[in-house]
Amino acid sequence: MAFKTSPAHEYTLRVRPRFHVPGVNSTTERVRLPEDEAEHLVRVLRMGVGDQIEVFDGAGSMWLAEVIQAGKKSASVRTLDALEPARELEVAITLVVSVLKGDKIDDVVRDAVMLGASRIVPVISERSEISLPAKARTARVARWQRIAVASVKQCGRAVVPSVADAVPFSTYIAGKASARVMCVEPSAAHGDVVSVQRIPKNAAVDLIVGPEGGWAVSEIAAARDSGAMLMSLGHRTLRADAVPIIAMTALLTSWGELT
Amino acid sequence: MAFKTSPAHEYTLRVRPRFHVPGVNSTTERVRLPEDEAEHLVRVLRMGVGDQIEVFDGAGSMWLAEVIQAGKKSASVRTLDALEPARELEVAITLVVSVLKGDKIDDVVRDAVMLGASRIVPVISERSEISLPAKARTARVARWQRIAVASVKQCGRAVVPSVADAVPFSTYIAGKASARVMCVEPSAAHGDVVSVQRIPKNAAVDLIVGPEGGWAVSEIAAARDSGAMLMSLGHRTLRADAVPIIAMTALLTSWGELT
Repeated sequence: MAFKTSPAHEYTLRVRPRFHVPGVNSTTERVRLPEDEAEHLVRVLRMGVGDQIEVFDGAGSMWLAEVIQAGKKSASVRTLDALEPARELEVAITLVVSVLKGDKIDDVVRDAVMLGASRIVPVISERSEISLPAKARTARVARWQRIAVASVKQCGRAVVPSVADAVPFSTYIAGKASARVMCVEPSAAHGDVVSVQRIPKNAAVDLIVGPEGGWAVSEIAAARDSGAMLMSLGHRTLRADAVPIIAMTALLTSWGELT
Repeated sequence: MAFKTSPAHEYTLRVRPRFHVPGVNSTTERVRLPEDEAEHLVRVLRMGVGDQIEVFDGAGSMWLAEVIQAGKKSASVRTLDALEPARELEVAITLVVSVLKGDKIDDVVRDAVMLGASRIVPVISERSEISLPAKARTARVARWQRIAVASVKQCGRAVVPSVADAVPFSTYIAGKASARVMCVEPSAAHGDVVSVQRIPKNAAVDLIVGPEGGWAVSEIAAARDSGAMLMSLGHRTLRADAVPIIAMTALLTSWGELT
């Protein structure tokens, strides 16, 4: 949570900056930061030799580290004590989210990572309003991945979830998944829409969220045919870009994972 | 939810525009829309005599209505059938939220209304970063109220929650409330922080959320002294502006209100 406490007379938050250093481990005597992380350390945060930071490998481990070299665009650290990162969820959640208008999916990626998603798979559904040339698509995936790393730093995880390039919904749904939950309006289907309390806790779940215009009937049918449970989040109309965070929070609460 | 379904071949969403018409009721033969609502109908939506809209009174009732007069800045309607608005929550939730940096609280107001809050009380806590002259404060409250109305229209409620002007946290906490729940970091207090599952369902609850910099120790103590339960939302660090929607969703899930 964002609530840092410190003695009432001391308002400065003592949060050590975190850096993503793929490949770092306890036995590395000296490890170079990736160039963009080094630049951030040296030029933005103006840190130097002797300063302490936190480094994580993106795969689940985090250490306290000390800067032992700092150049213009380079920095090296040595790891000190192992730190305990924010606990990963027991359920590996893959958020399958239909691409939304504009940059709204940026915030969805950020918040899904913060809430503990393992993987994010953007999909293009019938009513996604999107048409991007290949180059823009590539740039967009790279941006999502940067957003995921930034969110990992903020929330204290040490695992960087993968963000895939967008695929057509039909391609995604034709693939395999251990368990699928699709968010739909209560009125979207007949009789087989369940509330969040009815969704069982599995080792892995794909949570599927639609675009502003909703799912096409054929998409709901395809999901149901693939074994997906259809989940409703109540009778108020929720903004499409708020549904991922609401659906994830509801499932985590129901599964006892918000503790 | 935002997922409108219609036959697969028909992509146009048939959502009738909604208008807030305080004082409208079933016995009114003819009711004038407030000027800003009339302008929206005539100039933005270009609707006219004979068109059908939805009107709600802000206190819980909604009707189908027909436009029977439209001028440049005026419009009158007559109510037809009563409609069923989105169900109100069983628990009346007052969101007490510390003012956040910039305009972030705008989205908090919008989302809290969408999730069913009864009332929103912005507070200025020790670490709120804010200093506004009186005139700007007045404009800000008016903006929050407009955002609340817009969100009511979007989510299908017929009740417009009140949004108060910001008061100091100390003033708020010295007042009375039926039940209080304060969001804190798990580390914020010793032993008496509970998870969302432990928060009992009451007829009315004040949900209290802090600013980016967290609560001062004295504020947590004051809340505890006033009888507030301290609630944690798990071990990941959540962005302050995401906490209201996450906390509300978690409580609603726990209370069986997301159905």
